[in-house]
Amino acid sequence: MKATVMHGPGDVRFETVEDPKILKPTDAIIQLSATCICGSDLWPYRAKGPFDAPMHMGHEYCGVVIEVGSEVRNVRPGQFVVGSFVLSDNTCPHCQFGYPSSCEQREFMTGAQAPYARVPLADGTLVPTLEIPTDEQIPHMLAVSDVLGTGYYAAEAAGVKEGSTAVVVGDGAVGLMGVLSAKLRGAEKIIAMSRHPSRQALAREYGATHIVAARGEEGIGEVLELTGGVGADAVLECVGLQQSMDQALGVCRPGGSVGFVGVPHEVTFTGEGLFFQQKRLFGGPAPVRRYLPDLMERVLKSEIAPGKVFDLELPLAEVAEGYNAMDERRAIKTLLRV
Amino acid sequence: MKATVMHGPGDVRFETVEDPKILKPTDAIIQLSATCICGSDLWPYRAKGPFDAPMHMGHEYCGVVIEVGSEVRNVRPGQFVVGSFVLSDNTCPHCQFGYPSSCEQREFMTGAQAPYARVPLADGTLVPTLEIPTDEQIPHMLAVSDVLGTGYYAAEAAGVKEGSTAVVVGDGAVGLMGVLSAKLRGAEKIIAMSRHPSRQALAREYGATHIVAARGEEGIGEVLELTGGVGADAVLECVGLQQSMDQALGVCRPGGSVGFVGVPHEVTFTGEGLFFQQKRLFGGPAPVRRYLPDLMERVLKSEIAPGKVFDLELPLAEVAEGYNAMDERRAIKTLLRV
Repeated sequence: MKATVMHGPGDVRFETVEDPKILKPTDAIIQLSATCICGSDLWPYRAKGPFDAPMHMGHEYCGVVIEVGSEVRNVRPGQFVVGSFVLSDNTCPHCQFGYPSSCEQREFMTGAQAPYARVPLADGTLVPTLEIPTDEQIPHMLAVSDVLGTGYYAAEAAGVKEGSTAVVVGDGAVGLMGVLSAKLRGAEKIIAMSRHPSRQALAREYGATHIVAARGEEGIGEVLELTGGVGADAVLECVGLQQSMDQALGVCRPGGSVGFVGVPHEVTFTGEGLFFQQKRLFGGPAPVRRYLPDLMERVLKSEIAPGKVFDLELPLAEVAEGYNAMDERRAIKTLLRV
Repeated sequence: MKATVMHGPGDVRFETVEDPKILKPTDAIIQLSATCICGSDLWPYRAKGPFDAPMHMGHEYCGVVIEVGSEVRNVRPGQFVVGSFVLSDNTCPHCQFGYPSSCEQREFMTGAQAPYARVPLADGTLVPTLEIPTDEQIPHMLAVSDVLGTGYYAAEAAGVKEGSTAVVVGDGAVGLMGVLSAKLRGAEKIIAMSRHPSRQALAREYGATHIVAARGEEGIGEVLELTGGVGADAVLECVGLQQSMDQALGVCRPGGSVGFVGVPHEVTFTGEGLFFQQKRLFGGPAPVRRYLPDLMERVLKSEIAPGKVFDLELPLAEVAEGYNAMDERRAIKTLLRV
C-alpha cells in the first residue's frame, strides 16, 4: 500500500510501504475510514525535537476491523472501531485507576496516515460501535481518537466543573476541543485566548463566552480583568511552549488548576515559583481510552460535533499538502480521505 | 522586651528589642503562651537562601490577646487565640476560595519567638477559643499554627482520602504531621520514609503502617514493592530539596498527586518530565487559617496530639540552643516556654 512517511523536517512523502500485518496475537488490522494530521506531527516537521527518520506517520484513526490476532476477543472483523492514540491493555493497575495513557504496556500508535493500520493491544485499545457510522459522522468519530480526547483531558486535568471559570490557552484543534470540553463539563465562563478570526468564531460556536486576542502579560491582564482580578479556576494549556505555560499559570487563580496537554518543548518550572503561585499542575498524554465510550455516544447522538475542527479535507495521496497547510496555519486541522 | 533575632547564619541572639505595638487599626498584640522553632527557620540559619539580617524570628504562635486596634471586631483582650503563620484578611476572593495563604493582603508572621507579638490582620487571622486551654493543651494548640496545618495541607494537596495509599517524604516535624493528617483523612496505608529510629517511632504512633529507611532509587524501589509495583495515590513532600522531590515523584503512581509543602530550594522540573510521568503537583504555603477551627477543636477534644513533635523544651532565653539542637538533628522541634 501507499502511506505517509516523514523523511526529515518538511519532507513528507506518500509512498509505497509494506502492508501492515498481524505481528502479535493481540493485534488487529483496520481499514481506515479516515485519518488526519495532528498538531504534534508538526513538531518533527518543523525540526523541533529529535526523531528517527524515516517515520511512519499518523496516530489518529477510526475504521473497520479486517483482521484480528488469535487472542483478540473484544472486536471482530467487520466492526467499526475508534481507538486511542495511546495503545493500552485496559487491565493493568494504571488503566484501572483511569490512566490508560500510562498503561504498563503503553505504546504510541503510528502509521495511521494510511489506508490500513496495525493496532497493537486491540482488546484494550479499540471500542466498537453497534453500527457503521454514516459518512457525516466519520470526521466526528475520528476527532474522538485524539484531539477531542486530549481537549477533554485538558478540561478534566484543569478540574473544570459546573460553574467554573475556564481559560483555554491555544487556539489549535486541541484548544478548540478544550473549549467544547469545558462547556461539556459545565463551565459557566469560558475565555478562549485566540488571535485568529476563524478560530475565534469556532471557539464561540463551541461555547467560548469571551475571546482574548492579546498574549503574554497583556493577555494575562485582560483575563484578570474579565475575572474581577481573581484569575480562572481552571486553565487548559494546549500548546506546550514556555510562553503559553507562563500565560496559563498567570491567568490561573491561587488554588486553581492548570491542565496541560500540549507536549512540552523546553518548558521548565522552578519549585519556588510553583510553591508561591500555589497553582495545581497536571498534564500528560490524554487517557482517551477512558473517554471513548462516552464521547463516541455523544457523537452518535449528535450532541457534539468535534469534527468541525477539520477545515481542510484532502485525499490521503495529498498528505504533504495537508502538512504544509497546517504548518503555514492555513488550516486548523487536515482530514485525509482514504 | 527580650526576643529572638538572627544576625547571620548560625548567629541567633536573645536580646532587647522594641516592645510590639499596634501599628494599624487591624493589628492585635498577643502575649504568647508558648512559641517554637520551625524547620524553615533553619534555612537562613544554615545560610541556604538570602535573608535580611537582623531578622526577628518566629512565626508559630498562640496566646492571649492583650490589645487590639480600633478596627478589630472578632477577637478581644483576654481571649486565647491561635493564628496562622500566614496573615490573611479572610474576606478576599482567594480567602473565600479556601486559599488564605494566597490572600490579596498576604503577609508572613514574624517576631513570634518572643514574649509578645504583633499580629497584623487580626480579624482574618486569629481564631479564639471559648476558654483558656490547659498547660497540657498549649503545645498541641501551638502546633496547629503551622506545623500541623502544613502537614495537613500536604495531605490535602496530595489528595489523601478514605482508603488512599499515602507516602510521606521527610521525617521532620512537618512530615510527622503529614502522617497524622493522612491518617485523619482516612488513608489506609501510610508509608513514612524515615531513617531515624525516634522519628520512625513517632510516625508509627501517628499512624504510619510502614517505614522505608532507604532513600533515592533504593527507597523508591522499596515503596513500589510495598504498593504492588504501582506507586502511591498520594505523596506528601515535606522537605523541599531536589532529591526529596524526585523521590516523591518517583513513588507516586501515574494519575496520583504530590502535595509539596517544604519551601523548595533550588528545585526544578521539566515540562516534559511532568508530562510523561503524568502526576499531579500542588504545593504552596499552607492555608492554615481554613483548617484552624477544625484542628483546634480536635486538639481540645483530645482527638489528636500534634504537640508530641516537640521533643525538646527550653525557656525562651535559651532559644539559641534550640536552633543548635535542631540544626544538629538532636531535636525534631523545639518548644520555647515564654
